[in-house]
Amino acid sequence: METIRYYKNELKILDQSKLPREESYIDICDSRDLYYAIKELKVRGAPAIGVAAAVGVVVIMKNLFKAGKIRSCGEFLERLTSICDEIASSRPTAVNLGFTLSEIKKRADMFIAANEKKAGCDADFIEEVLIEIEKEAEKIRKEDIEACEAIGRCGLSVLRPKMRLLTHCNAGALATAGIGTALSPIYLGSARGYEFKVFVDETRPVLQGARLTTFELKKLNVEYDLICDSMAASLMAAGSIDAVLVGCDRMAANGDGANKIGTLSLAINAKYYDIPFYMFVPSSTIDFSIENGKDIPIEMRDGREITETYYSNSLPDDIRCEYNPSFDITPAELITAVITEKGVVRPNYKKNLKELFK
Amino acid sequence: METIRYYKNELKILDQSKLPREESYIDICDSRDLYYAIKELKVRGAPAIGVAAAVGVVVIMKNLFKAGKIRSCGEFLERLTSICDEIASSRPTAVNLGFTLSEIKKRADMFIAANEKKAGCDADFIEEVLIEIEKEAEKIRKEDIEACEAIGRCGLSVLRPKMRLLTHCNAGALATAGIGTALSPIYLGSARGYEFKVFVDETRPVLQGARLTTFELKKLNVEYDLICDSMAASLMAAGSIDAVLVGCDRMAANGDGANKIGTLSLAINAKYYDIPFYMFVPSSTIDFSIENGKDIPIEMRDGREITETYYSNSLPDDIRCEYNPSFDITPAELITAVITEKGVVRPNYKKNLKELFK
Repeated sequence: METIRYYKNELKILDQSKLPREESYIDICDSRDLYYAIKELKVRGAPAIGVAAAVGVVVIMKNLFKAGKIRSCGEFLERLTSICDEIASSRPTAVNLGFTLSEIKKRADMFIAANEKKAGCDADFIEEVLIEIEKEAEKIRKEDIEACEAIGRCGLSVLRPKMRLLTHCNAGALATAGIGTALSPIYLGSARGYEFKVFVDETRPVLQGARLTTFELKKLNVEYDLICDSMAASLMAAGSIDAVLVGCDRMAANGDGANKIGTLSLAINAKYYDIPFYMFVPSSTIDFSIENGKDIPIEMRDGREITETYYSNSLPDDIRCEYNPSFDITPAELITAVITEKGVVRPNYKKNLKELFK
Repeated sequence: METIRYYKNELKILDQSKLPREESYIDICDSRDLYYAIKELKVRGAPAIGVAAAVGVVVIMKNLFKAGKIRSCGEFLERLTSICDEIASSRPTAVNLGFTLSEIKKRADMFIAANEKKAGCDADFIEEVLIEIEKEAEKIRKEDIEACEAIGRCGLSVLRPKMRLLTHCNAGALATAGIGTALSPIYLGSARGYEFKVFVDETRPVLQGARLTTFELKKLNVEYDLICDSMAASLMAAGSIDAVLVGCDRMAANGDGANKIGTLSLAINAKYYDIPFYMFVPSSTIDFSIENGKDIPIEMRDGREITETYYSNSLPDDIRCEYNPSFDITPAELITAVITEKGVVRPNYKKNLKELFK
């Protein structure tokens, strides 16, 4: 199962809005394709969005060049900038999206600045620039795959065989280019015979847990049980949860982490029952430019996602449903440890994250 | 809108499993009708179940008598006992069900014991017994209506105009014979121009909030916003919730309260954000025979309620879903006040509930 398939200049994205009923791919040819693939959650998960955007922009630029719409370095950079701005506006919360797009742009800028004068700016040179940004996208993709493996190893170090784990949304292979973030220790652990049991929050409104995490765990042959989000606290009260594992869409410098709506409630519940709450955060997801969670932009989505998408026939059309945040912010004080690809970080996060990554 | 309609020996129950799309009534003629009406949530909410069971048993006994299947006091009591046992087994958590059924039985027992010897036990006498238990059912129903009004007044005493309230499941008119428990101050307040705004938890898996509470609030013309259960914490974090109002299916002597699954998580969230959490508990819902919440039986329902009932087409048939508790227990320490028809009770609940009701 490849979340993002890039082969011979063609980009295909597994359409996650159709999973698990249907495994089909959509082609990404222009910026409109990419914008809507991200906006409509056909590809989702902070790292996967970042990789899809990076590879996608390369494909789009190549197609524009082939169609004769880019004839100079000026046109190249202008087009690249406007496309990156458009794609970055598709979803605001995950920092990876803006981050990988700016990496691609930076690489093009630097390569052109360094070589334009001696090489001139003809079609051959633009082809070289395209190869350059393709290398950058490949690097981003490879780093994501490696970060997933490394996060998995770090995550496994805080877990023990036969643990009963709770997870929210989907932070697995479908959310990354690799084996996931919060689910990566489950991938590695299950290969080592750890026999975890995973309780899967269905994750309303879009059911990423019910549709995507169960799909991955089934393929992995890991024991799981699908629950409604509101049932997690009663499992904790019964002593049936040993640890909570969640992903992250953007972490502020102080350790406050934005993740799928519902994460905050789990973190508060876990604190109350003294259950370890681990947030899995690849360094690409940490935004050191933001002091704390208050400054993380939270995407507000259409209320019809709640009333229509997954259970249309039971509600009247005129039901009022206005508040539909896609994410919430979990304060650092509720996070037992932040699991990164470089190690397990404990509070004080502000100090310790900075030391590890700066 | 009448939840339970009893008129000229006929009992009709508003089929809440079809709301809000369809307002239709089902006839209750025999014990099988009543058992499934309760089991399949056509009538639900602890007080409503209690009233429906009491009135239902009267109708069933009358029908059996008319059909010539009861010819002696011995047969009457035997039949009554077996029917009450059957109905009581339909749902285990709400104490009201067992309570009102035992009141009906007690009334029949006492009336027969007191009058059988002088009156004999012919058809005329059995008709008198039927009138006696009908009076008891009417008393139970009337007390429920009055308790709702009184709870509403007590509830209103802890609220202020323009408050933004959060509620879970449905503890409104549809859950009682009157104006509800947790929603009763909203009924009374809206008549006095209180202008509440109510955030309505959709209440997975059966969506009593999305289907029933919004239906009532729309009729009341109260401003509401439907949210997913997992969104409540983020509203609390944003300072958008002034108080949480929930019903109760059974409260133990120490103040631990069983209510719809998801209530516990809200209570923990409210505690974390220091938001008042009020549980609305008519005295018929307090079970003084149970020391604490651990001894309250929690109904476990079919996992297909999660995977199928309200969003069938998005999940595969073989998805694993085993844990589906209908209720959870909120520990007394998380409850700011217990609102009863006799007054607002604050901790220590064990002492104060006992003093008020015993």
